Formats: sequence, C-alpha cells, structure tokens
Amino acid sequence: MRLSRYFLPLLKETPADATIASHKYMLRAGMIKQNSAGIYSWLPLGFKVLKKIEQIVREEQDKAGAIEMLMPTIQSADLWKETGRYNAYGPEMLRITDRHEREMLYGPTNEDMITDIFRSFVRSYKDLPKNLYHIQWKFRDERRPRFGVMRGREFLMKDAYSFDMSAEDARRSYNKMFLAYLNTYARMGLKAVAMKADTGPIGGDLSHEFIILAETGESEVFCHADLVNMPPPGELDFEADLQPLVNERLALYAATDEMHDAAAFAKIPEDKRLSARGIEVGHIFYFGEKYSEPMGAKVMDKDGKAVTVHMGSYGVGVSRLVGGIIEASHDENGIIWPKEVAPFGAGIINLKVGDEEADKVSEDVYAKLTAAGVDPLYDDKSDRGGVKFSRMDLIGLPYQITVGPRGLKEGIVEVKDRATGKRQNLAPDAAVNFISAQFGVGA
Amino acid sequence: MRLSRYFLPLLKETPADATIASHKYMLRAGMIKQNSAGIYSWLPLGFKVLKKIEQIVREEQDKAGAIEMLMPTIQSADLWKETGRYNAYGPEMLRITDRHEREMLYGPTNEDMITDIFRSFVRSYKDLPKNLYHIQWKFRDERRPRFGVMRGREFLMKDAYSFDMSAEDARRSYNKMFLAYLNTYARMGLKAVAMKADTGPIGGDLSHEFIILAETGESEVFCHADLVNMPPPGELDFEADLQPLVNERLALYAATDEMHDAAAFAKIPEDKRLSARGIEVGHIFYFGEKYSEPMGAKVMDKDGKAVTVHMGSYGVGVSRLVGGIIEASHDENGIIWPKEVAPFGAGIINLKVGDEEADKVSEDVYAKLTAAGVDPLYDDKSDRGGVKFSRMDLIGLPYQITVGPRGLKEGIVEVKDRATGKRQNLAPDAAVNFISAQFGVGA
Repeated sequence: MRLSRYFLPLLKETPADATIASHKYMLRAGMIKQNSAGIYSWLPLGFKVLKKIEQIVREEQDKAGAIEMLMPTIQSADLWKETGRYNAYGPEMLRITDRHEREMLYGPTNEDMITDIFRSFVRSYKDLPKNLYHIQWKFRDERRPRFGVMRGREFLMKDAYSFDMSAEDARRSYNKMFLAYLNTYARMGLKAVAMKADTGPIGGDLSHEFIILAETGESEVFCHADLVNMPPPGELDFEADLQPLVNERLALYAATDEMHDAAAFAKIPEDKRLSARGIEVGHIFYFGEKYSEPMGAKVMDKDGKAVTVHMGSYGVGVSRLVGGIIEASHDENGIIWPKEVAPFGAGIINLKVGDEEADKVSEDVYAKLTAAGVDPLYDDKSDRGGVKFSRMDLIGLPYQITVGPRGLKEGIVEVKDRATGKRQNLAPDAAVNFISAQFGVGA
Repeated sequence: MRLSRYFLPLLKETPADATIASHKYMLRAGMIKQNSAGIYSWLPLGFKVLKKIEQIVREEQDKAGAIEMLMPTIQSADLWKETGRYNAYGPEMLRITDRHEREMLYGPTNEDMITDIFRSFVRSYKDLPKNLYHIQWKFRDERRPRFGVMRGREFLMKDAYSFDMSAEDARRSYNKMFLAYLNTYARMGLKAVAMKADTGPIGGDLSHEFIILAETGESEVFCHADLVNMPPPGELDFEADLQPLVNERLALYAATDEMHDAAAFAKIPEDKRLSARGIEVGHIFYFGEKYSEPMGAKVMDKDGKAVTVHMGSYGVGVSRLVGGIIEASHDENGIIWPKEVAPFGAGIINLKVGDEEADKVSEDVYAKLTAAGVDPLYDDKSDRGGVKFSRMDLIGLPYQITVGPRGLKEGIVEVKDRATGKRQNLAPDAAVNFISAQFGVGA
C-alpha cells in the first residue's frame, strides 16, 4: 500500500480521555475513531490488525475441531426468558423494542441461542461431541466505557459452545479449548496464563480466564512464575487424551483475584510467587446442564434414553486483544507489533520523494516485498525525514527500510528492527531478502 | 470435512412460509435457521458461502482502489439529526435507547457516519480521491420480512463511500465502482445488468441498480437483451479513463420499473426488447453534496479555498447474494453452486462405509482432494445410497465422486457434474486429477 493513497489519519495530540498506552496509541496511530461512548470505528490500520487476530483465532479453533457458523446480533427476548437470564442480566443488556413492539436485545453472549439451535436439530448421541463457534459483534451497555477497545460497548468476540453426552466427555471438549487457547495467544506473541476463575453470570463450576500480564491490567492476578514462560503446547492430536498436558499447567498455582487462595499461594517457593496486574483475553466455562436443562436440549443415547447434554462455552475477546497486544508490546515511541498480527510487514521510508534514484529504489523494494508477500507500506509522501521516522515508529511495523540519496551513493539502504532498534546497512536486494526471510516467505 | 463431524442439519419438509427456491433450499440444506422474523443464523454450510461471496466482493473493491475499514452497527442518533434523516427515515430504522437514555440506532446505512469520519480527519485536496468501504451487518426493520435472506431484517452489506473534489472527479469514482461491480458479479457466476435506478432515501441524481434476472425477482425490469450476455470488463487499469467502457453499457437501454421510459424502450428492436423480473444485488449512487454540505465536510483546494466534497455511495447486498445466486442456479433437486462460491469444491460419497476397500479409496480421495485445495466434503455416514445422493444433490457441490464396492471391482469411481448431470467413470486418481483441474489447482 502506498501511504499517499491510504487512509491513515494520525493524531498529533493524545486525546485527554485516553489514559492507557493502547488507547492512546490506537487513537494517535489512526487505528480507531470513537463514534459514541465505547463504540468505535476501525480505521484501515486498526481493521487490518483486527482481521489478523480474528484469523489466528479462527485457524486455532478449526484445528481443535470446532465448526464455524454465525449467529445474528439481534436476538429475541423469548429465549432469554426461558433460561431466566432476561431479568437476571441487568442494565448491561441493550434492550430493544421493534416496530411490532416485540422485545429484542443486542446479544451480549449466545448460550441461550445456540442451545435453541442445538435442540432444534440434534437428536442422537451419534452427532456428539459438537463444538460450534462464531466470531460476531456483541454489545454490553457498560455504565462507564473506558480504556478504548479494552472496555468498549460494541466489541468483537469469538464464542464457542460445546455439547457432550456426559460431564466426562465435556471435560475433553474443555481441554481441547484450554490448549487451543494457549496456542492461539502464543501465535500473537503473547504470554497468556490460564487462571482459575469465577464463573460470573455464565455460571458453572469449572472455569479459567486467560490472562496476559501488563501493568495497566484491570485486575490483580496470582500465579507461579514458571507458568508465564511455559511454552505453548504446539501441534496437538486433538483426538488424544489431553488431560496430562492440561494437568501440567493446573499443577502450578494460578488464580484471579476472585478465586485467590492466599494459603495455597504461600506454598509457592518465594522466588516463584508472582502477583501482578493482568488483562483477561479469554474465558472458558464448563457449566453442564445450566442451559440444556431449562431449554430441554436432550439427545438419545445408545439405549434410546433421553439425556440432557452437557455444555461449555469458550470466549476470546478479539477486539480487546488488539489493545491487549499493544499493552504488552510498545515503547515510548509507539506500538511494536508482533510479526503475526502486524498490519503491514514492513515500512519503506523514501527520504527524498522526487529524487530519481530514491524513487526508483523505493519502488523496486516496494514491488519486491509485495511480490514476496510481506505486504509493505510505502511512505511516498513528501514530509520531512523526522516526520516519517516518528510516524513509522508510532504505527509499529516490525521492520523499516529507509531509502535516501546519501545511502544510495554507497549502494545501501538502512533496515531497522522496530522491536530491538537494531539497524543494519544492506544493498536494496539484500534488505528485501532479509525481511522476507523474517516472515518465512520467498523474495 | 467429514460429514460425521460436521453440523449439517437438513430438513426433510419444506417449511410452509418458504415460497421461493432460495428460501426453501437454504432451510432444507441446513444453511440457515430463522431465530426471529427476518433474523437468521448462518449454519456452517451457509456461513461458508457467505464468506466466499464476501471475499470476492472484498477483492474486487481492493482492486478498484477502495480501502477497507469497519464502522460499528450501533450509531448515535446525533449524526442522523444533522443530516435530517433521523426523522425522515420512518419505522424501518431500529431505534434504541441506551442505559443513559441516549438515542441510538442500528445502522441501516452509513452515509452520515462516514461523512463525520471524513470531516474529522481530512483537510486537503492532496488526500483525495478516497473511497472507504466496510462489510458490516445492517438492520432494517421491515414491516413484513420474507423470502428468507432476500428480504431479512439483519443483513450483511458492503457499502463504499467516495470523496472527490468535483462532480467530474466523482464521476470517475462512480465509474470505477460501476465496472468493479460487473466483475464482482461475474466472478460469482451471475449475469448482472446495470440499470438506471431511482435514488430513494439516499438521494442524488445519478444511480444504477445491478440486477440479476430471475422469475422470482421482486420487481419488473426492462433492458436491451444484449446487456445480459455482455462479458464483464475483466482486468482493468483503474487509473485510466473508464468512461468509454461505461458508455458501452449505458448506450443500451436498461431501467428499473420506477425509471422505465416506455417510449425509449419501444425504440429497441423488437427481438431485443427484454422485460423480465429482476433481483437487485447492488445499488450505486452519486449524490454530490447531499451529506457533505449539511455536515460541513470541506477540504482546501490548491488555492487554499474550502471546497465541499462530492460524494457517492456503493452498496452490495452480500447476504442477499447467497439467495440471489440460488434463485439463478438451482433445479428440482436442489442448489447448483457456481464453483467460486461453492461451500465445498466436491462431495465424496462412500456407498458402503465399513467396507475395507470403499473406506480406503474414499479416505485416499479425501486426503488427495484436501491436499490439492479442493476442500471436499466426505460423506462418511452410514445412510443408504439414495439418502446420500439426494443429500449431495440438495447441497449442490459442483462435483460428486461416488465410491462403491461394485465400481471398485473394476477399479473405478463415478464423477458427476452437478450442473450438467454428466457422469464419467474414472480411476480414483484420475478422478482427483480431473476435479482438481476444474478448480485450477494442483493434485
């Protein structure tokens, strides 16, 4: 993409209401614009990151055997009355009356609706286990939306729902999601820890939150320090028994504030006791028959007996992750995108637009990186070098290639690694090859 | 995908309220489930088609230089009051009051919001032209939703918005979309005709609807017959003057019911006069300063003079297209998917699950088609052959491979082309190669 044709409206000033790094940088880097309190437009740069995160979540769900579908945003209140949640849910639910005076709502979650879909179609144990997911916008009418996309009102969530014949089978479904989540976050460059969590309004008796540590985290969390750097499970046979892999993690203490057990925490060796601020980026639940029972979601077992199915639900905060990744990866100059979620793989800075040689080399590098699949952003605007450098640092692409007349006299361009700040001078083609190799793509 | 693990809830009976082919088949083939009047869940099979259509729309928009972003579904009423549309837009607008008693609405379209975004950031002629688009769920509270996804309440639309310095420049932006749309529909196997159209509540003085002809179309349309089979423009240089290519189309009469001119129509040679039912699958508008003027969207021109920008908007009914394609492509046994939008490239029917040889060959064909990128659906369920054949016909995958003990004795499987019904007997590897070749992928 050529910057001159792109829509990247940077802000010079940080809006006063932005108090945390991700909110500040997302506004300043032209990633989002607030339209109403807690409701944002995703401008092109922010949209690209959102889509990359969504795609990683999708791929890891698919690998774990979950099947994608899509439920609507607007739901009828009727289903929520069946489960008793319509009255229980409080003012965070956005309630709507349509033109025929029917009670509707903007879905904050989908347990009720997916249970209705399941009971409409599934009759036999032969069709189980099933795990159905969707990635859809949700709405929670927060009393005081803040922190940008971290606590917005309209937000994008991946939510999966599993259906099993027994608590034991449901535990297997739970374990698949547990491990798939660890792989998901690791692919985004995040160190996420699964922590024992409160089940809140979803209910149930087994639940974990996935937490990334960050100073600006919303809550206090407690865990064994070894969990933070434990490598993700990696490629898995999801048909195998995953309990041992899950147990390796559960053997070490990790709990959110609500579930914290000071006595158990005190038993951790002192140098391994970690108490820190955390950001929740996922939450999984096993809640058994909580929805299937009142809604009559039953299937026939092998003996023709009707069995109420056991369910779990599994959420990933897709739009919140954009903010979470920035909280975990930035410096005083701006964002530092992990490669897998970067909106563009590299930025090309032409220091002298209009200079024949600088233009030629920049265009050539742009064409070659594009062909290699790096998806570069080419700064072809006629601003001063200082403006270009700070702009590129702010938006945080993993690599920068600076092309200027001075270097070109010696046949070189400068390649900068945004994360380490390391610079190297390379011939233009060598720069293209170096960057392509970082992404594992052909130049 | 193995059918035994998929979620494909077929219906044996056609629900009584489904009167047109697409609605019937989408319900029967387990593509959608109605959750409330005019509000649907996209079950896995339907979701895959929806995503394929969305991706084609996206690619053709990107080629034409439009830039993707994403606006929220919930909007503040304030912007709509600025343009005077809040009161003008009748009961089809879903009006919402949030917990702080603020007036909100579920966006039926986004002219007001995009104009606000534009005026917040863009100051100079140097940043124009711009065309920003998003693919987002919309809501129109239809009095009487019907025809399944063809006239639903919650629906997926691609809407693009162009910003230019003058009416002349805006015409260039209009022409890009005009031709990009023809390419978009052609890629989905549709013959769409651009017809002079009424501007309705969007306003403006230049507008075309893109219409596909189908007996179940919602309105009467009139055109020169040659337009129906005119090839799409194909690969274009979007920087070039596109007016001649557009003029080739405009030279021939084509109008919707509202804009029909019987006298002009009568001048078409009689054997070329086509009057038929049509389905609208896109609508483009040039409306100049209709929104930019009341909202004060101005930029500085070269001489430092403030100029009100000229705008257009360009919609494609993404979810409606799923129904539109079925209306245009089905027979008495079910759907016939064009290759580019088919949910799976081919179906493998194992006629005798449990038979060692049939299982082995089916698995092998499944693995090879998967590796080739054909994305097959493998019917590994133990139903009777008749059930399997009609199921596969109903869901309409372009190719079927039938694997059975009888054929295997002679070393062959049967390949059926869903559209033509043509069958051929081939060795399993030859069948894999034949089908892969139809998709232009390697086996």
